[in-house]
This record gives sequence, C-alpha cells and structure tokens, in this order.
Amino acid sequence: MKIIVDMMGGDNAPLAVLEGAAQAVKEYGVQLIGVGNEALVRKTAAEHNIPLDGIELVNCTETIEMCDEPARAIRQKKDSSIVVGLNMLKEGKGDAFVSAGSTGALHVGASLIVRTLRGVKRPALATMVPAKQQAYLLLDCGANVECRPEMLAAFAVMGSCYVNKVEGRKNPSVALTNNGAEESKGTPVLRDAHQLLKTTPGIRFVGNIEPRDVPNGEVDVVVCDGFTGNVILKLTEGVAKMLLGMLKQMFLANLGGKLAYLLLKGGVTDLKHQMDSEEYGGAPFLGAKQPVIKAHGSSKAKGIKNAIRQAKICVENDLCGTMQSALDELAAAQKTEE
Amino acid sequence: MKIIVDMMGGDNAPLAVLEGAAQAVKEYGVQLIGVGNEALVRKTAAEHNIPLDGIELVNCTETIEMCDEPARAIRQKKDSSIVVGLNMLKEGKGDAFVSAGSTGALHVGASLIVRTLRGVKRPALATMVPAKQQAYLLLDCGANVECRPEMLAAFAVMGSCYVNKVEGRKNPSVALTNNGAEESKGTPVLRDAHQLLKTTPGIRFVGNIEPRDVPNGEVDVVVCDGFTGNVILKLTEGVAKMLLGMLKQMFLANLGGKLAYLLLKGGVTDLKHQMDSEEYGGAPFLGAKQPVIKAHGSSKAKGIKNAIRQAKICVENDLCGTMQSALDELAAAQKTEE
Repeated sequence: MKIIVDMMGGDNAPLAVLEGAAQAVKEYGVQLIGVGNEALVRKTAAEHNIPLDGIELVNCTETIEMCDEPARAIRQKKDSSIVVGLNMLKEGKGDAFVSAGSTGALHVGASLIVRTLRGVKRPALATMVPAKQQAYLLLDCGANVECRPEMLAAFAVMGSCYVNKVEGRKNPSVALTNNGAEESKGTPVLRDAHQLLKTTPGIRFVGNIEPRDVPNGEVDVVVCDGFTGNVILKLTEGVAKMLLGMLKQMFLANLGGKLAYLLLKGGVTDLKHQMDSEEYGGAPFLGAKQPVIKAHGSSKAKGIKNAIRQAKICVENDLCGTMQSALDELAAAQKTEE
Repeated sequence: MKIIVDMMGGDNAPLAVLEGAAQAVKEYGVQLIGVGNEALVRKTAAEHNIPLDGIELVNCTETIEMCDEPARAIRQKKDSSIVVGLNMLKEGKGDAFVSAGSTGALHVGASLIVRTLRGVKRPALATMVPAKQQAYLLLDCGANVECRPEMLAAFAVMGSCYVNKVEGRKNPSVALTNNGAEESKGTPVLRDAHQLLKTTPGIRFVGNIEPRDVPNGEVDVVVCDGFTGNVILKLTEGVAKMLLGMLKQMFLANLGGKLAYLLLKGGVTDLKHQMDSEEYGGAPFLGAKQPVIKAHGSSKAKGIKNAIRQAKICVENDLCGTMQSALDELAAAQKTEE
C-alpha cells in the first residue's frame, strides 16, 4: 500500500506535513509518496532533522492557493501538488490521497480526476465531529451546498459504510438533520428525503434529529446538505472555542483560578482531547472512486499523521468497494420501486 | 399600558407564569391581563400565596397544546388563551401579548389575528442569543423555514430596529449567515440576498458571517432563514449544555474537583448567567402589527418576568411603528430601483 501525501497543503506546510508523514511511517509502517516542491521539502527536512525514510518524493512546481478559484485551479495548475497527486491516485501509483490544501480544489479534483462511484454525482465531505457520548460522522459538511433527496440517501449509505469500516461500529444508526422530530417537518426536500431514507436498504434510519440533540452523539451518522453541515461543524467548533476560552479566563483570573486549574488539570486535558478534531484525522470525500482525505487546513503533525492512519484503514478495508456495492443495492431498490 | 399574558402557556403553567407576572407587576409597575382558566389560576395563586394585584383575569375554556396542529388550533380553538389573548390585542384591549405556549400557533395567530406590518408576509421569530462579546439578535430562528431574498432584507431592517429600540444599541451591525465571507458563497437565494442587503436603506450591513464566528458576538443582528436559524439557536444551546455538563462532571469527580468548584464558583455563576437565555426574556415575532412575545416553553418565573419587561420596552419605544416606517422606506427604495 502506498499513500500519496500533498506536502504543500495547509497553513503549516511543508513542515507540519513532513513531521506528520515521518511519524506515520514510523508508527504505522506505511509507504508514502510526498508530492510537492522537492527542494523545499528536502531543505525543510534537513533543517529540522526529519527522516525521509519511507517517503518517496515527487517534484511539482505549482501550488494551489486557498484564494484560487477551485475549478479553474484544477484545470490550469496541472503541475500543482493536488493535481499531480490525484492523477497518480487515478493511475494506480498510490492507493489514497491525503491533503490539508484547498477543500474546494480537492472536491473538484476528486470529481473530475479521480471520478465518482456509480450513483454518485459529486462526492460529499464527511467529518467525525466530537460529541458527548461519542463522535458522530457528519455529511455533507460543506461540499454540496444544495442537495436533492437522492443525494441525501446516498450520503446515508456511504456514511454507514464509513463508520462501519473505518470506525468499526456495527449496525450504525443514521439520522436526518431537521427542525423537528415529526416526518412532516422541514423543507419539501427534507420531507421527501425522510420518506426515501425510510425505505433505503442496508442502513438503520432512526428518523429526524433536531440540532439540539446533535451534540449528544447518540447516533453514528448525521445526514444533511452541505450548507447545514457547514453550519453544524463550524458552529460546534465556534461555541466550544468560546466556552473553553471563557473557562481559561476563569483559570487565569486570580490565584484561586490557577489553583483550581491545577486541581482540574487531568479533566481539562481529557475534555480538550475529546473536543480536538485532530484526533479524528481528516475529512474523507465519500463518493470518490478512491480514498481522498482532506486534513484540516490548520493541521499540525498529529492531524496529518491521523489523516494518513485513516487513509490506511480506508484502503485496508476496501471502503470504496464496499460503498460501491451498497450504492448498487440502493440503485437496484430504487429501480424496482419505479 | 396593559400587557396581556397567556396564563396557560409553557411547561410550568400556570404556576411559573403567575409567579413571573406577579414579580413583573411589583418590579416594573405594569398592568397585566391574564388570560386562561380563571378558576385554576385563582386556585394556584391562593395555594402559593401569589398576589393577583395588578393582574386582571379573563377566563377562557380551552388551551392549545404543543401537539395541536397550529393552523387548525387557531381556527378551531376560539376560546383558547392564545386566540382570546391575540384577539384582545387586535381590539386594542391590551398593548402586547406574552405567551410561553406553542410557537407554531403563536406564529399563525400573529399572522392571521394580529396581522402583519405593510411589507411583511409572515412575521419572523427573533431571539437574543448569548455570545462571547455580547448577545446578538438571531432571526428568523424557526418560523419561516424557507425565505426569499426580500424576506431576509425585511428581517435585517426589523432586526436593526429591535436591537436599537429594545437593546439600546446605536447604529447596529447586520450580517448574513453564509458558508464563506465572499459575496459569491452560498445558495442562489443567499447570493441574491447579499446583493439586496448591500443596498438596503437604514441598516449597517457588514457582509456575510461564517458559522464559526457567530458565537463571538461581534455583530448585533444575524440574519438567516428559519431552518438555519433553528440550527444555530438549538445547536448553540446543545453544545453549551454538553460542555457545561462535562465541566460539572469534573467538579463532581473527586475532592479536588469539588475544591476547584468552590474556587471558581463566582466565575461559573457568571458564565451560567451569561449563557442563560431566560435573562434575555422571550423571542419577539417581528413583523406582527403589535408586539407578540414568545417566552421559552420551559420558562420559569424569571423568563416570564423578563418577557413582560421586554414587551413593556417594545410598547414604550413604539417598536412596531418604528419598524413600519423603516419597512416603508425599504419598499420605497425598491420601487425607485425598479
């Protein structure tokens, strides 16, 4: 197995990517292909004493920036790390692609270069989101702003495969984000999606989930359109950041606060750990023909390492093959119904 | 001034409503009309030694339940506290209506009985949401699941009037919830709304706001459709509840935690206070011809009292008249443009 890594993606590239890649080689024994500005990567590795064992470097001359328009960047920057890496994935030179670069460019590239599974028009971006009981898989969390009911059903099927194969959860539950528990709630799209999900084969649909219950982490897969998913993902991060910031202020306020911090240190560390999205690796584009994983743009070494581990699990468990079988079953069921 | 109060609305009616009403009479010197089952209200007041001074009671025989279909309930339950109260408001027997009852029924009732301001088809539900810097007004937070750009512009105008007149903020800022700062982001409706808001008179539009920045509380009015607003409101509550619950677990875990709690007690109380939605009273239906305020269904006395205070401020500052003038200005500007 070889995992292709975008050395130029993210706020802390190439240093954080190199560190994470080197750690992944050491801990998981994976073989990596690092795509990027080879001279810069070698210089950075030498400066920071990062071993390049197990990392084959492929040089490219361009980088897709966050400000580039995604579709144009994929078409025009042919020698960028994202385009070169995705082409290598498509050509079978590697088994998965990991990047902390532009989400939009990765989405377009996954669709146009790697192509999608039968029954999927555009891949969905999925993320494990920290929650009370346990983290849940949220999809789509930003790639497809508007979604038809059939897309939401495909998300449910692919999300179930993912948490089963990658997170090891048996018979995962799936819920549809809506502004009420009743079937009659929400927009016409959501009402239709609810009916479709009730008869979707191979998933355990538990009905609508209200936003207030999402952070309880009592379902495994939370399905929604990419606009709503973006709100859920980013607002969860924002509210957690606000409250943890307020807590920190309390600890710093006076001597009593500092003493309290020492007394609670273990618990606070656990809490931060539980709320740390880097623990869960990156966000897979579900529906691409091969695993494409988007690591957080601000990933440090740990985030990159965990995204590589996640890519390895996807490959080992043939996630894409499993999803294709499940999607074919869905298509067959829909055909029978017509 | 007389404020009409629904004695039968909410999980803790009529006791909590009575307590809140009595406190409001005492603290703010308002005159109240309490609509509900008079015998039950008098019995509850006697049992708990709650004075009925300043509260005129109007008997009615029906109650709209949370499970009732809103439009049908408003049409059929003519002698319910909501229908009787809203009719009294319309007939000028009172100046504002406060209820902790069914949001859906209040929305339908505000539209059909009280009627809407010129330029408003259906009122929006607005709520002050606790945030880091200061609470912000979120609208629509659930009444209108889908919204056209013109509706979002009207929300921006009405929301600005509200935070100015009721919260006393000068020259309030307004932002549009979107999945990116750029004008080109979001659904077609949001892109059109962005352009419309740029030229809307009488508001200070500061552009799109991303969900992650919403909890910072740096803008005064956050505009969105009712589906998105419901997600923002309820998810903010859900995440805060989850984290405060985890914090509590830490305090209860062992002796060190208990000691830490004693050291932090003041700060924790401040934090809970800041995150407590009951402090901000209820959610006004902006766009109704007269003030209709929805108190939280789980309101205790404090929530009811604050909702009555809020109704009083709306009346004192002629909020509805101010909003009508601003909406007329918006309509004139749109006409000129055509």
